[in-house]
Order: sequence, then C-alpha cells, then structure tokens
Amino acid sequence: MEKSLVALRESSAAQQYNIAEAWLAAFAGALEQRDYIRVAAMMHSDGYWRDLLTFGWEFKTLHGVDKVQSWLTETFDAQAGRTFRLEGQPTVGAIGEHGATLEFFFRFETSIAHGRGYARLVEEARSVDLKAFTLLTTMHELKKFPQATARNRPREDLRIASCQPENWADRRSAARRYRDRDPEVVVIGGGQSGLMLAARLGQIGVDTLVIEKTRRVGDVWRNRYHSLQLHNEICMNHFAYMPFPENWPVFIPKDKLANWLEFYAEAMEINVWTNTTFLGGQYDDGEKRWTVRLGLADGTTRTMRPSHVVVAVGVSGIPSIPKFDGMDEFGGAIVHSSENTDGFDVAGRSVLVVGAGTSGHDIAQSLYGRGAHVTMLQRSSVTVVSLEPSSVRPYELYRRNDGVRPIADTDLMAASVPYPLLARLHQPLSRQMMEDDKELLAGLRKVGFLLDNGEDDTGYFLKLLRYQAGYYLNIGASDLIIEGKIKLKAGVEIAELKPKQVIFSDGTSLVTDIVVLATGYKPLQEWVRAMFGDDIADRVGPIWGIGEDGELCAMYARTGQEGFYVSGGGLPGARAYSHFTALLIKAALEGLLPARSATRSEASGERREGPKRAGHASAQELQRIG
Amino acid sequence: MEKSLVALRESSAAQQYNIAEAWLAAFAGALEQRDYIRVAAMMHSDGYWRDLLTFGWEFKTLHGVDKVQSWLTETFDAQAGRTFRLEGQPTVGAIGEHGATLEFFFRFETSIAHGRGYARLVEEARSVDLKAFTLLTTMHELKKFPQATARNRPREDLRIASCQPENWADRRSAARRYRDRDPEVVVIGGGQSGLMLAARLGQIGVDTLVIEKTRRVGDVWRNRYHSLQLHNEICMNHFAYMPFPENWPVFIPKDKLANWLEFYAEAMEINVWTNTTFLGGQYDDGEKRWTVRLGLADGTTRTMRPSHVVVAVGVSGIPSIPKFDGMDEFGGAIVHSSENTDGFDVAGRSVLVVGAGTSGHDIAQSLYGRGAHVTMLQRSSVTVVSLEPSSVRPYELYRRNDGVRPIADTDLMAASVPYPLLARLHQPLSRQMMEDDKELLAGLRKVGFLLDNGEDDTGYFLKLLRYQAGYYLNIGASDLIIEGKIKLKAGVEIAELKPKQVIFSDGTSLVTDIVVLATGYKPLQEWVRAMFGDDIADRVGPIWGIGEDGELCAMYARTGQEGFYVSGGGLPGARAYSHFTALLIKAALEGLLPARSATRSEASGERREGPKRAGHASAQELQRIG
Repeated sequence: MEKSLVALRESSAAQQYNIAEAWLAAFAGALEQRDYIRVAAMMHSDGYWRDLLTFGWEFKTLHGVDKVQSWLTETFDAQAGRTFRLEGQPTVGAIGEHGATLEFFFRFETSIAHGRGYARLVEEARSVDLKAFTLLTTMHELKKFPQATARNRPREDLRIASCQPENWADRRSAARRYRDRDPEVVVIGGGQSGLMLAARLGQIGVDTLVIEKTRRVGDVWRNRYHSLQLHNEICMNHFAYMPFPENWPVFIPKDKLANWLEFYAEAMEINVWTNTTFLGGQYDDGEKRWTVRLGLADGTTRTMRPSHVVVAVGVSGIPSIPKFDGMDEFGGAIVHSSENTDGFDVAGRSVLVVGAGTSGHDIAQSLYGRGAHVTMLQRSSVTVVSLEPSSVRPYELYRRNDGVRPIADTDLMAASVPYPLLARLHQPLSRQMMEDDKELLAGLRKVGFLLDNGEDDTGYFLKLLRYQAGYYLNIGASDLIIEGKIKLKAGVEIAELKPKQVIFSDGTSLVTDIVVLATGYKPLQEWVRAMFGDDIADRVGPIWGIGEDGELCAMYARTGQEGFYVSGGGLPGARAYSHFTALLIKAALEGLLPARSATRSEASGERREGPKRAGHASAQELQRIG
Repeated sequence: MEKSLVALRESSAAQQYNIAEAWLAAFAGALEQRDYIRVAAMMHSDGYWRDLLTFGWEFKTLHGVDKVQSWLTETFDAQAGRTFRLEGQPTVGAIGEHGATLEFFFRFETSIAHGRGYARLVEEARSVDLKAFTLLTTMHELKKFPQATARNRPREDLRIASCQPENWADRRSAARRYRDRDPEVVVIGGGQSGLMLAARLGQIGVDTLVIEKTRRVGDVWRNRYHSLQLHNEICMNHFAYMPFPENWPVFIPKDKLANWLEFYAEAMEINVWTNTTFLGGQYDDGEKRWTVRLGLADGTTRTMRPSHVVVAVGVSGIPSIPKFDGMDEFGGAIVHSSENTDGFDVAGRSVLVVGAGTSGHDIAQSLYGRGAHVTMLQRSSVTVVSLEPSSVRPYELYRRNDGVRPIADTDLMAASVPYPLLARLHQPLSRQMMEDDKELLAGLRKVGFLLDNGEDDTGYFLKLLRYQAGYYLNIGASDLIIEGKIKLKAGVEIAELKPKQVIFSDGTSLVTDIVVLATGYKPLQEWVRAMFGDDIADRVGPIWGIGEDGELCAMYARTGQEGFYVSGGGLPGARAYSHFTALLIKAALEGLLPARSATRSEASGERREGPKRAGHASAQELQRIG
C-alpha cells in the first residue's frame, strides 16, 4: 500500500487518487479473505463505520476497531460486499481534530444490491498507513430493480403508445382511483416525508397510496402561521429527483413550499387521496397484511389490505395542549400554534404566547408586526443562535456543494458522520457559535431569557436531532425581546386563568385577550397508540431521538412491528433516508428481506433501547428547519 | 502563439488548454489594437462568426474573413469586447469535414454587458495556427442587472419579512392582479414560449403579464389530440431555470407537459391571466407605448399601455382551413386538427385525414387505434425519417450533454453553428438518414407515398427550421401505411364534397363519415395583420424561416416595429432565444438600447429580406418536435 507520509495537503491529485485506490484495494482484499482483524485494523482506533442496509438490513453505527471486527464476524458473510472501486477524484478535507482527511466515494456490490460508500482517511500516530476515521457503506439499489433515472429514463415505445385507446392521463387517473385493487403501501400523511417516500417507492415499481387529511396537498404548510418561512437555506431542502429551481430564493416561504409539494405529487405521479383521514389499523401476522380504515372525502369509509403502512404524519400529530384551571372562565381566545391566527384582529390587543421554541418566537414576532402587545412566556431554557454566522455552520457541507454535485452525494457525505460523532463535533462548534453570538446572548440574559447549550454542550443541532425542539434560530424575535418590544415572562408556569387574565406561578398576573399555545405536539408514539393500539405502539417503541445504538429510534428503518415504518423529520432527513425505507419495502415485497425474527439483533437477544429522553415536544420545530 | 501542429486528437488536456488560451489571447490582443485584419485572419477562410447582441444588438451571422473584417470595422468600436478568458477545459470534437476541432467556452465583457462565447478551432492548409471555423459571441447579462440564480439566489432579510403584515402569497397575489398599474410587457400566449420569456423577464425585474386565451395554463397542449407525445427526446426540451426531473420519461406525453407548464408559471412567479383574449393593439410612436385591448374572463375589456408586446401565440394562430365545393352538402363532420376529436365515436367509421405532416400521421394512427377505417390524403411530398436512428441525429449534442452540463451551455454550443452552416452539415447527415431508413422509404414508395429530402437535400431538420412543416418522424404511422392499414391517396387534391363522399381531382371518390383537416395554420404575419393592422404587419414582415442574412426572420430579435417581438418555435428555440429577447427588452427599458433607426442595418440602408418561402403551413409541427 502507498505510504501516507506525503503531507495530504501538499499532495497532487494523482497522489491522492493513488493513496485512496490503494487503501480501497487493501480493504477489499482483506474483506475478500474474510480477514476481519485486518479490515478492522484499517479503521482509526477512534473510527466509526456506519452501514445503511448493505450487510444486515439495519442502520448500524460501529465505533472503534473491536466493534467493527465483531460486527463483521457476525454479519458480513451473509451478504458479503465485493468489487469495491473508487468513484471520482478524492478530495482533501478536515474533520474535528483531524486537520487533513482524504475523502472519497466508492462503489461496491453484494449478491443482491449495488452499494455506494464514502470514506474519510486520516493519519494515525505510529502508523504509516492512513486509517478510516469514518466509513459509510449504503445500499444504493437492488440489482433486479434499478432506478430508471437520468441516462436510464423510462422509454416508452411510441409505436405502441400511439395506437392505444388510453393515453398517459387516462392511465394515471385509473391508477389513482384504486377502484378494483388495493395498494401495497399506504402512507399516512402527504407532507414532504410521505411524498418523497412515495416518489421513491413509485420509482421502483411499488404501488403506493398516500392519504392526506387536508383538502389540498401542501396545506400542511399553507395552513400554518402567516409569516412562516424556512429558517434554513434552500441548499439543504431540495426534494428527491427534483431540486428546486436555480432562481428560487434562499429562504422558502411556506406558500411557495406548499405549492411545490402539490406539484411534486403531480410530477412524481404519486397517488394521493386528499380529504382522507386515517381511522385505524390492525396487522394480521398470518397473512402479513394490514387492515386499515380510511375516512374518505365523500364521508364513506374504505377498508384496504396493504402489506405495509408508513406513518408520515409529521407535525400533524396530536397537539400538546396543557390544561389550566379557569380555562372556561377566561373568556378570551385560546389557540394552539397549529391553528391559523390570521383571522384574529390583534392590533392593540394583548397576547400571551406560551412557549419559547421556534413557533413561539415566530408567532410572537408576527403578532408584534401586526400591532399586538405581545408577552412571551418561557417555561424552560432554550438554545438561541444567530441566523448567521451560527445557524448555517452545521450545514456548511450543503452550502458548499449546492449546484456543484447532486444532493444525493452530499447526503452520503453527511450520513457518513454518525450521530455520536456529530455530537462530539458539535461541542466545539456550538461553543464557537456562542462566542460569535455573545452580544445576542448577553442581551437575552439581561432581560432574563433562560439560555442553555444542550445537555452535553452540543447546541441547537443536536437538540434538533434528539428532541426536534428547544432552540430558536434568531430571525429577529430575540432582538424584539431584548429591546422589550416583545415582553418576556421567564421561568414560571401558568397557575390559573381568570377572566381575561393569566395568573403565573410566581403570583404575578397579566391582562390578556388571547393566549397562543406554542406548546408543541405529543410524542408520535401516542398517535400510534391511538390509531393502532397498545401492542403495536409498544413494539414500535418511542419514535425519534438518538438511541443507545447511535441511530434515530424507529425512524426510516425497520421497527419492532413488521410492515410498519415511520418517516418524518425535516426535508433533509426525509429526502436522504426515504431512499432506504423504499429499499426495505421493495426488498420485503420481493422476498429479499429476511423475516424480522431472523435479523441479527433479535436473534442475538439484543433489545434496542429507546432514547434517553423521548423525542417529545414539537415535531414542528424540525419541520421549520427543513 | 502555440503551434497547432500537434495532432489534436493525441494532445494532452494541458496542451489543449494552452493552445486555446494562446489563441484567445492573440484574438483579444488583436481586438484590443483594433487590428481587424489580424482578427479576421484568425478565422478559417470558410469560417462563421455568429454574434447574438453583444456588438450591435442584433443576431448576426458572418461567413468568411472579409465579412468578418468589414463587420468588425463597422460595428465593434461602439461596444467593444474585452477581458476575453477561457472558461473550463477545452474539448476535442469534430464538425463536418473537419475531423478534429478544439472547442471551448470563453467569457468576455463589453462596457455594459458580460458575454459568453464558444469557439471551434480547426487546422487550415498552409497555416501553422488553428483558425476559428465557428465563433459565437453572445450577451450573457447586463452588468447592472445580474441574474439572481444559483450561488446568487435572492436572499430576503427574514428579520424584516417576519414582521411584515403581507407575506409572499399576499405579495404575489397583489402583483398578479394589476389593479392600479399596467405591466411593461404584455406577452400574448401562455405556452412554452410565452412562459419562458416571462420567466426570464421576471428574473431581471421586468413587470410582465402573460395572457392566455384558454381556461388553464397548459391547455394549449392538454386540448390537443389524445395520443400526442413529444416526438423528440426530453434532453432537448428542458425549461429555462427548471430542468425536467431526472426520472421523467424520454418522450413526454401532452398532459404531463401541460401540467408542467402550469406549475412552471407558478414556480417562476409569472403573472398569467387565463381566459383572456387579445383583442388588438396600436402603437403610439410618440409615447413609445402600446394600447392593447384584452377581453377578460368576466366578459369585460381591459385596456393596457405596455411599452412592449410579445406575440407568443404559437400554434394558436389561425387554422388554415381550405374551402371545398359541396362542404354544405357533405353531412359528415369536418374538423381541423387543432380541435379535439376524442368525443367522436370513430370505431368502424370511415375517416379521411387531409395532410401528411406530423399531425396528419399522428391523428391517422390514433384513429386507426380507435378502430376507424382511415385514409390519408397526401397532397404534396414529405420527408419521412425513422425515430431511431435518424430523427435523433440532429440533436446528438443534447443527448450527449444531458445531465452532464447545464443545458444553457449546450444551447450555446448549438447556437454556435449558424443556420447556413447547419444546412451544409445536413446534406450529408440527411443522406445518411436516407441510407439508414432505406427499407422504410422503399416501403413507402411502393404504396405511392410521395417522398422528398428538402429543396436542397437537407432533410427534415432544415424543413423544421424553414417551414415548421413538411416532415414526419415515424412513430408507427408509416408502417401502418406500408401495411395498408392506413389507406393512402397521394398526389391529388379534393375536387369537391358530396353527401358523405369525397371526390378527388383524379376523378376517384371515397365514401367517408368524417374529414379531419391536418392542414396546418396560416402564416403568423396574417395573425399580426388581423390584430395590429397592415402597417405593423408590414413592418414586422414575414415571420419564421431562414432569411437571406442567415438568421430566422422576425423571431426573438428586434423586428421592424419598435417594442414588438415574436417568440415561438419549439421548446429548444423558445428556451435558448428567450434569453436574448429578455435582454433586448430590459436594455430598452433601461435606456441602453439605441433607437431602432440608429441601428446599423437601417442606418446603412439595408433592408432585411424575408425568407425565400414564407414560414407558412403549420407552426404545430415544430411544437410537436419540441
């Protein structure tokens, strides 16, 4: 193998290519010989290998040489990887304490799938060879079901098509109707997660119906508060197969995004039933099919027997509405942040916004703009960062690569940093943010705003990944709070309501006309419980949050319930991971997916642990950021 | 300058780069010194320089050293080009008899604009230096009005936006209403040409209203015959700023394209009034404004005073409907191909399709598929080519570059071959097509089908550019004709109609229930005459077709009528050239465009000649192909 002693930053492109190629060849050779000790020794002692589906149909994060070795020993043989080859030209980067990394994409295959990977090699003390600090292996496509995209677009025989009595529009309209058949997959929720997953499923020939309770695709965004725009940049938020146009703005307004969702459903030929409510479902273990009941637009009910159900309800879960003594006597309006307040004439009126997350801040700011006298009630501490330079730091990778490479590639680069490593990286990064934002934070402290930097000093981005809540990217509300234009009441709770008055737990009170509850949503597991019963809810377990295994809980991957998946999260997660959910479902339908009980973690008696703290609070925080 | 004696095909990328750079430096140096003799000598003796707007606000094709020299002498000084620099890595290609070309993009600027160019260098006998066989210079953007795209996307200040009472949706809806203002530009027609031009105008801040007579954007495609799909491949047909998704099919069905148009209008934030009819317009030379009358959806009339009017009616011009003796007595249905025949129950009935262009063939094939007894009446000879391998040859460039580089770049490469050179190249190319298709053509000849290869043996593609008619890309109708499943009556006219009977000019007759007139559309100049009167129609002159100057007549560029433009053609032309129409209009609004009388061609007393044969027949043929 090529010596790594050349300083990476000074090496030529050809040298970098040779080093990467030699490393990959040695890696492949050791795997070929099933010499897992040698393979594991090619990892940095502090290195992470993340595998998405290729070698065990799971999302798996392994940290350190020993873990890698024992995992390979247990798993690799059943679905061995081979024909590893470099893809494109390596680049030199940096990560954490490693000032120089050699990074590259690679391709490989197993007996049933084509794979793609991404590696970051670094130097290690007392070694002449570069070692993998991060290594990602992912399933790209099932060999038998390649994606018909780009150079492999679907090509119809026009000779036949031109003589057929039914044209494309006729066929689409029949497919959408489900008059004499049921879909294989019912996706509950037609927001970004449901639609992107349905697009990917359709792409590999899986008959999928998306049901959406609102009147029109996109209403999940359209019906939200008036001033809402995405707080993160467009470079993060492109849709699968269909990036946003090059002339769209950096920050997408909610209605513009809503219209995009609607057209996306059309452009991707997704079967969506709007005005359709999910009424509940049971699973038949013998038949391996669901019985789901749908409330249709015309008031009737339809029962379907799909093999798979995907929960993609996102923010449309159950609003978390606290009960207060005296609510009946209050006499003013009490609305949850999920409801639209555009109709309220708020000018000159007193409004209390309960909650200091993103929605709380946005709504307070918007109400202030409409002339209301706004007080924000902050019940617990929050992480606040500036929009720039701080909030964009975590997705610098996407900014740099936007329009330069396909976003699917950037998603692989991002996925190659597992959550536990991400948390480590965000400690110094979030301290840098606090340093950059010190004036803003001092101002907030001065007016009594309660700040924190996350439980392990990892800042807003990890709060997003863990709780989808507990932070605010300042687009101006913090300034209004500092200037006293939005009044603040911090560290107290509501004790009770009196007529047009709120009494706080410290005994103080506020005369108010309207109370807006920006209090988030109940945990998604509770929605599953209500719709599918205790058994299934318990099998699925808590949803979202980073588990002990370093992966998100019950998201995108197989859950404890066969044929049951959860999709969701912001646009980037929904885009990147719907790829894998679609592959899992297709594999199951084609008989390629081993039965749940035979997968390694159950066979070996492992019980996957839930997150330390359930991902409760508000899924909407994440939606906002993407 | 670097010697060109290295064989291009064997040269390294670095050598190619150096040769291109040296050539460009010498070219720039000669221009800098205004040494037009030296500049012209850098052209191949048979070379073409095409300039789109940069040096004289015209579309200009110059052939040969002398023409280039005199044009530079006359034109260049007024708006001199400078800071020429290579863009990206040159490539080695081939064109016509030149087996090896060195091709490269370059950038430059004038005092007011940034330019982009594309050059093809070739070897020339008795010269050590490479010479430009084709040289394209184009206006890319006005320096003062850069495009906000890609890395320069619009970035709103969220602090301000979040406090404003009006959000994006409110602002869009107010802009679209034109309650208390008029637009600067009224575009007549909301098909692909009108929409892409409006998108480009909006992008550089020009207030533009598109009016569309149908109920819904896209109806121009939706309402056409049932089996219609584009006959050319998707790689040609991407929209400006918004390429089709990577998973769309190679051949786009009409309804799918129609829906795309509708969403494009929305995604590009184009102000469209549907159900709105253009009633006529006059130009006020003094005020330099139009008075246009619009018939609105609610039955009222609105008068507007825009400074510019763009005719983008495409196929929606006036159908060309021949009159026959006995039409009143016929008793069966007589419909033009622009009308939808889906409602007709044709099974088992006898139908005569008059016309052997693309619509004639498609409709005959579709009727056959629906069980009709179809006869095609071919009145004059037609060019027929196979879908593959022949019809795709002219756009091999787009196939090769699809997904590899931005289509705007491919458009530049395509535009760098001027129409007169294109005609020369299509003589051998169309002969190759005939060779490849000889079985098909022999079969057609055998049943009496009248074939030709264009007036100068240039085949279908030049017919498209000259007449938008007179050819058919075989997607199966030719086979049905050869097999006798579609009957053919060739080389005759309709003499008269009798009850349920057609009498031909050769005395034969046909019993028939329905006559479909696939007889195309009247010349667009006639539509202009009807709407704007004789003066303006005469000033504009014949529209479409290749003029004596080697450019399309009255298309995309300035016309003889100030403030009056025509957009149209298929998707590729509409996409590529709308860029220049938008720049011309913006330049006029910003006072950068010299008055029409002061431009070179009028000042020097030149009168631009119309095409040898007016672009009559059917604009729809071109629409079909893109």
